[in-house]
Amino acid sequence: MDSNPRDVVTSIRVRYAECDPMQVAHHSTYLIWFEAGRADLCRVRGIDYPAMERSGLFLPVVEARCRYIASARYDEVLELTTCILEIKRRTVRFGYRLVRDNQTVAEGETYQMLVDSSGRPRTFPAELFERFQP
Amino acid sequence: MDSNPRDVVTSIRVRYAECDPMQVAHHSTYLIWFEAGRADLCRVRGIDYPAMERSGLFLPVVEARCRYIASARYDEVLELTTCILEIKRRTVRFGYRLVRDNQTVAEGETYQMLVDSSGRPRTFPAELFERFQP
Amino acid sequence: MDSNPRDVVTSIRVRYAECDPMQVAHHSTYLIWFEAGRADLCRVRGIDYPAMERSGLFLPVVEARCRYIASARYDEVLELTTCILEIKRRTVRFGYRLVRDNQTVAEGETYQMLVDSSGRPRTFPAELFERFQP
Amino acid sequence: MDSNPRDVVTSIRVRYAECDPMQVAHHSTYLIWFEAGRADLCRVRGIDYPAMERSGLFLPVVEARCRYIASARYDEVLELTTCILEIKRRTVRFGYRLVRDNQTVAEGETYQMLVDSSGRPRTFPAELFERFQP
Repeated sequence: MDSNPRDVVTSIRVRYAECDPMQVAHHSTYLIWFEAGRADLCRVRGIDYPAMERSGLFLPVVEARCRYIASARYDEVLELTTCILEIKRRTVRFGYRLVRDNQTVAEGETYQMLVDSSGRPRTFPAELFERFQP
Repeated sequence: MDSNPRDVVTSIRVRYAECDPMQVAHHSTYLIWFEAGRADLCRVRGIDYPAMERSGLFLPVVEARCRYIASARYDEVLELTTCILEIKRRTVRFGYRLVRDNQTVAEGETYQMLVDSSGRPRTFPAELFERFQP
Repeated sequence: MDSNPRDVVTSIRVRYAECDPMQVAHHSTYLIWFEAGRADLCRVRGIDYPAMERSGLFLPVVEARCRYIASARYDEVLELTTCILEIKRRTVRFGYRLVRDNQTVAEGETYQMLVDSSGRPRTFPAELFERFQP
Repeated sequence: MDSNPRDVVTSIRVRYAECDPMQVAHHSTYLIWFEAGRADLCRVRGIDYPAMERSGLFLPVVEARCRYIASARYDEVLELTTCILEIKRRTVRFGYRLVRDNQTVAEGETYQMLVDSSGRPRTFPAELFERFQP
């Protein structure tokens, strides 16, 4: 994941409820943080995701992957970098890197498909396709 | 909360992700368990809540309260008793008691209002009103 | 909940995973936001809650209450004000008000007890007692 | 994922709080269900995971992957099959398949490492190694 001026950085403070009995953020929480990163990336690139959903276009996750490298603890502040790895006619692939003090905490990817409200695959409208370019 | 033959008992096994660094179930989780109890109560009383929502009737929580009396730990099995405390024209009040081995773990209440899809209060249809009787 | 210079304001952006099929933030999520507000209040007042836990002092919630007044939707930014309502020898009561554009979304309270690692009630050390003053 | 007599089946009812504005179970929830499946698999094979943790051995997830094939909706009952794909000296790989009415909803894997309470890798004790055989 090379740095790209179009990548977006989100600051994440670890919540108590997100931590588990091992005293670290539960591994399912990372997917929720990645989603917050995608929301920020969309906002920065002028993509109004809530409006997309109101117009009947959705981007469900069809595959997710995360590698947990170091632990994240309650009240720590993490830096999440979200990027777009690839866009195709109907799918988009996002990449994530979570860092604390220059140490990589986790890396992940989600693969998402554009669908309508009945779940049928759709082709990205030209303007959206442009905004989702890596 | 006296026992009532129309009360419904739900078995809950505490999940790891539901526990926090104090090694106990996080207090927000109890509201999710209470909701699972309501789902069981509806099912037992012949109320199809998913169908209610599809027909445009919703029961959002307008007030919730929980008293945490003992801790619940990972992998423990709890017994949740859900009852209806009161039904009025547009509102219903549920009560919950969570028990482990005859020890009360928590007690709670939710107060819910019947609304339509734009959030406007609605009056319970006669059949629903009957099914929600304490 | 009158305004107090010692109250703390936290900005909360509603996450997608926090919303439910009614298209609004799930009612259990508010307790997690309130906890984030407490974390900010502690930090601002010089209370290092993670260090408190490492030293064997915990503040579990023994009672929580929330009144849901308006809905919160995905991607909205809410302003959470957290205050201390009361401190006693072993307990502290927090108050919360969640606002969006001058509209109150929710109000809540948590009642918490100082305990040691075996769950026995403890008396607030003098310095902590001072920092938790309303 | 071929069927194996040592695989374990867990019944999962989709909770309301687990569903998102797309009206389907949020993709992060699947990792929590997989964890519930692991808990059941451990129990059936005589592995007391809570006792393992008390004795200072933990199995954090170092990599997770999920492929989402069909949606899961509120109140549906899903069947989760959990299996062990591979055990090595210090790591174990679990596989998951989530099914509803013979339709595969999702498939996933977690890769986990045995560590002590300071996070150092440990070798499986012989008895545990035996119980975690595929």
